[in-house]
Order: sequence, then structure tokens, then C-alpha cells
Amino acid sequence: MAVAKRKSSSKAAAAGKKAAVAASGSPESSRPSGSGGLKNLSGLVHASELWTGAGFRIKDGIRVTREDAGVVNDGALIWDSKGQVVFAGAVSAMPREVRAGLKTSSVRDLDRKQAVTPGWVDCHTHLVFAGNRASEFSRRCAGATYEEIAREGGGIQATVSATRAMQKKDLLALARDRVREAYAWGVRALEIKSGYGLDLQTEVKILEVAQSLKKEFPLIRFHITWLGAHAVPKGEVRADYVQALLREQLPLVAKKKLADSADIFVDEGYFTLDDARAVLTAAREAGLKIRVHADELGNTESARLAAQMGALSADHLLCISDAGIQALARSSTVAVLLPGTAYYLKKPHAPARRLIESGARVAVSTDFNPGTCMTQSLPWIMNLSALYLGMAAHEILCATTYNAAKALGMESEIGTLEAGREACHTVLPFSTFEECFYRVGWVPSNAP
Amino acid sequence: MAVAKRKSSSKAAAAGKKAAVAASGSPESSRPSGSGGLKNLSGLVHASELWTGAGFRIKDGIRVTREDAGVVNDGALIWDSKGQVVFAGAVSAMPREVRAGLKTSSVRDLDRKQAVTPGWVDCHTHLVFAGNRASEFSRRCAGATYEEIAREGGGIQATVSATRAMQKKDLLALARDRVREAYAWGVRALEIKSGYGLDLQTEVKILEVAQSLKKEFPLIRFHITWLGAHAVPKGEVRADYVQALLREQLPLVAKKKLADSADIFVDEGYFTLDDARAVLTAAREAGLKIRVHADELGNTESARLAAQMGALSADHLLCISDAGIQALARSSTVAVLLPGTAYYLKKPHAPARRLIESGARVAVSTDFNPGTCMTQSLPWIMNLSALYLGMAAHEILCATTYNAAKALGMESEIGTLEAGREACHTVLPFSTFEECFYRVGWVPSNAP
Repeated sequence: MAVAKRKSSSKAAAAGKKAAVAASGSPESSRPSGSGGLKNLSGLVHASELWTGAGFRIKDGIRVTREDAGVVNDGALIWDSKGQVVFAGAVSAMPREVRAGLKTSSVRDLDRKQAVTPGWVDCHTHLVFAGNRASEFSRRCAGATYEEIAREGGGIQATVSATRAMQKKDLLALARDRVREAYAWGVRALEIKSGYGLDLQTEVKILEVAQSLKKEFPLIRFHITWLGAHAVPKGEVRADYVQALLREQLPLVAKKKLADSADIFVDEGYFTLDDARAVLTAAREAGLKIRVHADELGNTESARLAAQMGALSADHLLCISDAGIQALARSSTVAVLLPGTAYYLKKPHAPARRLIESGARVAVSTDFNPGTCMTQSLPWIMNLSALYLGMAAHEILCATTYNAAKALGMESEIGTLEAGREACHTVLPFSTFEECFYRVGWVPSNAP
Repeated sequence: MAVAKRKSSSKAAAAGKKAAVAASGSPESSRPSGSGGLKNLSGLVHASELWTGAGFRIKDGIRVTREDAGVVNDGALIWDSKGQVVFAGAVSAMPREVRAGLKTSSVRDLDRKQAVTPGWVDCHTHLVFAGNRASEFSRRCAGATYEEIAREGGGIQATVSATRAMQKKDLLALARDRVREAYAWGVRALEIKSGYGLDLQTEVKILEVAQSLKKEFPLIRFHITWLGAHAVPKGEVRADYVQALLREQLPLVAKKKLADSADIFVDEGYFTLDDARAVLTAAREAGLKIRVHADELGNTESARLAAQMGALSADHLLCISDAGIQALARSSTVAVLLPGTAYYLKKPHAPARRLIESGARVAVSTDFNPGTCMTQSLPWIMNLSALYLGMAAHEILCATTYNAAKALGMESEIGTLEAGREACHTVLPFSTFEECFYRVGWVPSNAP
């Protein structure tokens, strides 16, 4: 709740400018004033609830409590022309110099009807893909087997074929609409994986689409992940494909700076622990962060590998072992849980409570993808987290803000609302945070 | 696909006019031309898919097949100035006199990008209530017991207190927004129950709010249900409350024509089979249709009672017995399944496949209510129906159109798109019907 110290580096200023846009969505705040001091401040006042999450950062996302969520009634969130928070707290506690510096035209009064939280982070999505598997979904629900679907060219192969066949501009148009939808649902930072190309050309095409989105949507922060090792392409030998990843895809992705991190799907019928060690070691050496699709369909002890290798995140974890839980709890690797996928696959959910109580950092995310979780609604994922992962409101918020930001290596900038950090936030259409996950399927109206 | 015969009764004309508005949402079509014959027709052309559901009516909703759904590609739906369908079929099969009668300004070209189905019917909701139980939901998910919540004044009692305390105009304002949201999700006919008053004055207030909605929203058909027997009011004796229902509430509701049907919650801790027989018999004698909240929390053989008494519907059925299934299959009572409630309560789902295969008519609905299913998203309920009830696309469509209309006694007018019937329909934002339940949480944009 202290007034922010000002940073002076040009990098910080650029980041600040971007956050200001992200935070307010109003054109006024996107123009830095150039003047110093507490002038030309923008912000929100009379939020019914302001969840600052300040304690999430102090605890570094481990065993957070309701107190750590920093809930303030009748809250104000004020930022400067660089988009940095200068005040986050109760309206009644706003210092006089902050009040004096507010530009009237840049203040949004929420009339105690809307809650504000740190900007939501969807830290695991496969957002860039072509094709449609609605009919396959419907037939599978009604009893068709995976084998029948696959024989007819369905399954992941259908998405790979459609994605390979689509021109980049059309793929970008599809992806653009999806980013808009994520924003409408409250998402302010978004991870996007490649992985529906499974050949050099298409993986590059997908990553280039993701890079274009980054330029097109200054309101949203992006983290782009290369997932060439999503599956073994049909008709290819696993070991040969891994060699091609190491020899061709990874060097090109690194050289063109197309991705922030590398990921691999470790599971029976997909890639092995040894493949993961080879690909992730090479990725790290090429300057990428690493993450792992771990212990989803069976237990391969891939969560332990992720922890051992210092991955940003280990994702899925439906079949994680006790040793895996302990390994994550002792590491800084974030456990990213994807309850929508368990719902779509009708599998038992990940052991969220054991992870949390063991001291692992838990994030939750959509896993938005056409095969096993066709949703972009982070609020619905929060609802599943409450009902089926047994998570409390403060745990759910931490899992979609600070911990999800940490899974993307962004936790030093976003994920909490505190003086001196970015003003990246989400304004809810409800007076309480709980309401957005108590309901399923509300109609969001804040699309950009 | 034949051109409609024209009805001449003024009642049919009035109904037709209403449907025209409901169907098109465009001001033009709400003005009857006054001229006879095939003039001044309105409609939709180039629907990517038109699902007429003609076979649903022929089978009367029993063991329907994909063929019964009557799917046509590049479809046209054309109606007259009274809102009656004159043509529903492929654009290429449209008769010349229909084509000639189309008013250019009243034709909407869907450009083969949007699918059209019979208007969706949400046949079980508790839409009129005050208060908010988001915090209670969140705390219960995180481990608080029902007893703890109840001790603090939570649970149904919280909703009853808030509903009793709220003025009618404020209750109407809340309900109005909810009707708009239902419409946005594609709902064109809506059941609304009372039941959060549990005293004469408040039950009447709720029903009057529902009657006001009926007048305010000509785009939507309403069916209003008196559910005075929702629960025994706190501190009252069950038998005494049932007597009060019979002596006071029911006669007043019937006299003021506040409801179309009567309902009762039969379960351990709620009302008995004998209570149900007494209340429903009296309701029938007072001119109301009847329906039953049956076999939800335990098996009370209340579904059998519903079938025996000729109820329009038996709803919930999580714990229905084989005898109950057989009784429904031999009756015309619709089995209304509410998979969102099983999801919120984390209980095993109703035996949808056994019901369907036994020859019972199955409808699905939201059960929208603040305690056990806080959703208005019928598409999400369809998703649950596919994944967790194992229903095929044509079964899901029948369950939300013809069979749901039958649960409201409206199946002679709406629920299929055929010449001579009402043009009540839903236009999807997707090119296939399956897509609306393959995704969870899409952003609807067709709010009125």
C-alpha cells in the first residue's frame, strides 16, 4: 500500500506502458505523459472487492491463506503513466498525493458493484490449431471408440492435417478470435504452445502465428512454447523424430527466437523420459526455458524429472506419484493442473490438495485444445478447481495469478497488485470474486 | 417440407404472430401483413445445417434416431406473417411460390456458417430468487459442511430469507436479466418455478414476477410452475405446511391463474409420497398440470407416482429404480434429467441410457438455482449430457426441443420445424449443432 518507487530504465518504461494499456483498456492511459512524480495517474475506485494477492508473492505461492489474498473492500487500484501500480488498497487509505495526481478522465468508478483481482493468467493452452473435432467428440460420447475415430482419420491426426493444410493468415485469423475470447473471459496473460504441426514447416508456422498475436494484442502478455514433441507423427519412428527435433526444429526455433520455452509430452505411446532429458537439455542450452506434460495418462515419473531439471512447470499430473509430489514441493517447478481435461477424459482429477499441503505451488489452467479440452473459460476451470480439486477461493486466485505467472516466468512483474509492480488486473462483472466460479457459463461482456 | 396449410382461427393467428417475433427477432416480421396466401414471407436461408426434428414428433420423442433429427445441409426456414412455418428444408427444394413470396428485407442469409435448430426449451428452472450463495459455495467446496453452513443461516434458508425480503420490482429486475441471459444462450421457451418463498405472500410474489416476465418477453414462451412444496419452512411442521398449501396457497394460485402447473419435492427430509398425492390431486382438480421433483437424493418411488398420476414430467431421477424406469417408459411423463445438478452435488448421474433404451422420453435442462446448479447455460448441460449421460447429438437435440416442449405441454406447437407449426427456432454461432456442446463456455452474442 506504499506509493511506488519509480523505475527509470527504458525497458521498465516500455513494460510499464504496455501494462497501462492492459490494465485500463482505455486509450487515455496508453499515452505516457512524460512528466515525473505523481501526476496523470489512472485507476479504478470503489471496487466492491480488491484482491491484491500481496501475500502470494511473500509466500512465493506456497500454502497461501485467505489473508495472503489481501482482500480489501471498497478498493482502489491506481497506476502511473507507465502502468505501474502506485496504490492498491482501500479508497479510504489512499494517500493525499495519489488522490491529487488522479486525472479525472482516467478514473473508472466501479460503484462497489465489481470486484478486481490481479490479471488472470492462462498458463497452458494449445490455442493455434485448425480443423474441428465436434463431430468426433459427439460420436465418441455416444459410444464410438478411439480406434474407430482414428481409423476414419480423426483424433490428433485430424488436427495435424488441418493445421498443416491451412495458410498462415487463416490460422492467424482463427487464433486472433480465440485470443479475443480469452480476453473476454478475463485472461490478461496467455501461454500458447505449438504442437499440431509435427513437422519443421508447420511448427514454425504455428510459432510465427503466436509471435504475430504477441504484436497484435498489446493488452495481453504472451508466453510461447515450442511443443514439437507433442506426439510422434503418424508413420514415423519415435527415435528418428526425436533426432529431427534436435537436429532441425529446435535449432531453427532458437535461432529465429520463436519461443520462450520448450515442452515435451512424456507418456506411454508418446515420448520417454530419455527423450525428455535429451530434448529439454538441448532446449535449455539453446536458451529456452523448459516445461513438461507430465504423468497425465500414466505415471512415468516425469514430474520428478521436471523438478530435477528446474522446469518452469510440470503439467497435468493426473497420475503423479508421492515421490513426484515431494519432488515438486522441494523445487520451484509449478504444478499446473488442468481439471477441464480430466472432466473431458472422465478421469480422476489430479491430487490438488496433497500437492498444496505438501508445499508444491499449484496453478490451474484451461489446457484449451481441440481433442481433450475444448474450452477457453478460465472461470469454468476455477469452478472445477473448487468442486473437484477442493481448492479454496484464495488458492484458486493464487493458482490463476501469481502461481500461473510463475509457471511462465512472469511472477516478478505480474500476478499481484502492489505498488511498484505492473497494474495488470481483471475487472469482474460480479461484486465478489467467488461469484465468477460459483456460476458456470456466465456471459462475459468485456471483450476488447 | 410441404407448404403449410393455413389455419384460420384467431387463436392460431395470435400464437403465430408471437412465434414470428420469437423466430426472427426482426421488427419486420412482427407485423402481420393482413394479406392471405404466400406473401410477405420471412426466413433464414443458407443455414449450414437445418435440424428440423420432424421425426422427433413422429416418434413422439421415443428412441429417436439420427434420421429423426432431419438434418439438411444448406437449409432454409421460411415462415408467414403469422409466424407459422411454410417451408423447412434444403434451399434447393424450396417451392417456387415460397421463393416468390419472400420479402427480400425479411430474409437473413446465414452464408452456410450458422446452424439452425428448433428453439431450445429449458424446461426446469428456479429462475426467480434473491440473494447470493457464492461464498457458501466456495466455502463448502473447501471443506465446510452443510451443517456449518446451515448454522450460519446459509443453504436454502438464505435464499428464502432474501427472496422474502426483496421488493417485487427488484426481484423482477433480477429475473429480467436472467431471462435475457437464457435467451442469449439460445433458449426460446422457459419453465420457471416458484419455491423460494415458502409462505403465501412470497410464493404469490414470485409467481407474479414470472407472470410479468411472460408479458415483457414476447420472444420467449413461458411455463410457470407453483412449487410451494419445495421444502418445509424452517421451524414449521411438515403436515401443517402441507395443509396450508392445500387450504391457502393452491386455491389462491389457481384462482389468480398464477401458474400452469404444480410441482412437489419428494425426498427424505422434504415431502412424502402421500403429501405428493394430496397436493398433486388437488392441483389437478384446480386445473393445473402436475410434475414432480422425483428420486433425486434417494429413491422414494416418486417417479412411479408421477407416471401413475399422468404428470407432465418427473425430474432429477438420480436414484430412480428399475420399476420407476419401466413406469416412465409406459407413460407419457417426460423424464427430465438435470446433469448440472449431479455435477454440482458430485453425485452419480441419472441412468439416461437405460431410460432412453427402455422407451422413456428424456429431456435435459439446467435446473438453474442458487443452491445446487448455478448455471443458465443449456449448451453446457448438453455437454454434460454427451459426456456424462452418453447421449448422441440427435438425442440431445430431442431432449432440449421436442421432449422438453412435451414436458411443458407445448409439443403441439413448438419443438420441431415443420410446415404448419410455429417457426420457433435457435440460430447457432457455429456451423454445426455438435459444436455448441463440444465447447464449454463459448461467448454467446445473440442477446435480445
